[in-house]
Amino acid sequence: MDSVHPLDKATALSPGGDGRLHGSTSDAYWNIAGPFGGVTAATLLRAVVDDPRLLGSPVALTVNYCAALASGPFTVTLVEQRSGRSTQHWSLTLHQGAGVAATASVVCGVRRPTWAHQSASAPRVPPPQELAAQTFDVPSKWIQRYRFRFVEGQPVFRPAPDQPPGGARSVLWMSDAPDRPLDFVSLAAISDAFILRMLQVRGVMVPMGTVSLTTYFHATAEEVQAQGTAPLCGVADTRRFSAGFHDQTIELWGSDGMLLASGGQVVWYRE
Amino acid sequence: MDSVHPLDKATALSPGGDGRLHGSTSDAYWNIAGPFGGVTAATLLRAVVDDPRLLGSPVALTVNYCAALASGPFTVTLVEQRSGRSTQHWSLTLHQGAGVAATASVVCGVRRPTWAHQSASAPRVPPPQELAAQTFDVPSKWIQRYRFRFVEGQPVFRPAPDQPPGGARSVLWMSDAPDRPLDFVSLAAISDAFILRMLQVRGVMVPMGTVSLTTYFHATAEEVQAQGTAPLCGVADTRRFSAGFHDQTIELWGSDGMLLASGGQVVWYRE
Repeated sequence: MDSVHPLDKATALSPGGDGRLHGSTSDAYWNIAGPFGGVTAATLLRAVVDDPRLLGSPVALTVNYCAALASGPFTVTLVEQRSGRSTQHWSLTLHQGAGVAATASVVCGVRRPTWAHQSASAPRVPPPQELAAQTFDVPSKWIQRYRFRFVEGQPVFRPAPDQPPGGARSVLWMSDAPDRPLDFVSLAAISDAFILRMLQVRGVMVPMGTVSLTTYFHATAEEVQAQGTAPLCGVADTRRFSAGFHDQTIELWGSDGMLLASGGQVVWYRE
Repeated sequence: MDSVHPLDKATALSPGGDGRLHGSTSDAYWNIAGPFGGVTAATLLRAVVDDPRLLGSPVALTVNYCAALASGPFTVTLVEQRSGRSTQHWSLTLHQGAGVAATASVVCGVRRPTWAHQSASAPRVPPPQELAAQTFDVPSKWIQRYRFRFVEGQPVFRPAPDQPPGGARSVLWMSDAPDRPLDFVSLAAISDAFILRMLQVRGVMVPMGTVSLTTYFHATAEEVQAQGTAPLCGVADTRRFSAGFHDQTIELWGSDGMLLASGGQVVWYRE
């Protein structure tokens, strides 16, 4: 039995003699024309959290997807731009061949006891064990690497054409498949594991892809660890689809009702 | 009479012989320990939109604030990372002396006619002329560069200590002061022109500063231009304050009820 989780295989990086990190795309997280963007985000975050210079824990991650990655090896360049007493700023570039496939920035922060307040509330949902896991009969393999238990906003893949737009909001329980204890790397991946809102609102598949993704980590390392393998409650929504681009906002709530991560992305689409 | 708007002065860049762009901080947009972050964001976006290589118009902007800028000159390095048929990816670095003060990424996109749908709704608010402009008696000069007309969530600067937390949401009309026809540069600046949620929820001033800001531009260039000098309806909120960092989400609605921009930021705070 192979005891290494597919996400750990997919995000593995090894240092090269050239100061770069070397990785390879993973079939287990393949999408349609390239790897699942969440695994690219997780790989770039892993380069930072595994670096001995790391200060604190991740606070913000932005990944810009410049071009689809082909199946095979890639290299990551990691630059520590500036570190202070409380924050550390990193820039990353992912190359494949001569081309830049993605750029990213990561801000890490030293978490200290301060005044604290959660002004937003977790959605009221039934516990995950009361909901059936949704299976998707689609070619994208990454979808099999997550369990989705929808509370509301279940996407419909084959609707009648020309229906009025559906609601953009989904609420669902999400977890790695197979189970894996949560860490910042998997939290980065799962922040991109929502079915793109276009499918749900419009009900048709058109060419589309994330061009920029930002995730904010609200959880301390201790809160992330305490989550273990319990499902996260995810919320996704979109405000506007217009002229070839739409936004998508997300929240990821822990099983104790605390917000672990939130963020947004902008998605290109055709037609 | 000086006909150049303070925002155009503050964001002006001139090419140097070294391939870099040269700018200088502006007293008109000074904050407390450095320039208003929105003007830094606007300056970095301006470097891209004024570049002859520009493809389309801005879609996403992320700025990471690595250190406070001192009053005086700075340099901007601009790299076109990759351009395709629909998107163009830029990376920027802002240096002052030997140190990196900010990094940024900008994604531009070619806007094409597509299926469109606004799934979110503009807040129902009275027209701006029915609301008094709020004045703030604070040392930060940038606040005088905007007109704020609050509908709800007006910040209170001098509350009684140890009050229960207030609501985090504000809704307000915002415009440049003096008036300036909207463009992507001013839209980037105004996306950071919300009073930080900490002040409003907690009612006390503690050391704080934005560490990462992301703005998505939903509007086409034509929609931005059509807005002219009319006020934007802004919405700001926060989900969680914890262990020295909090998020802040924003929306900027045009006077015709269409969403022009949305985004988020993460803010460091002490105590």
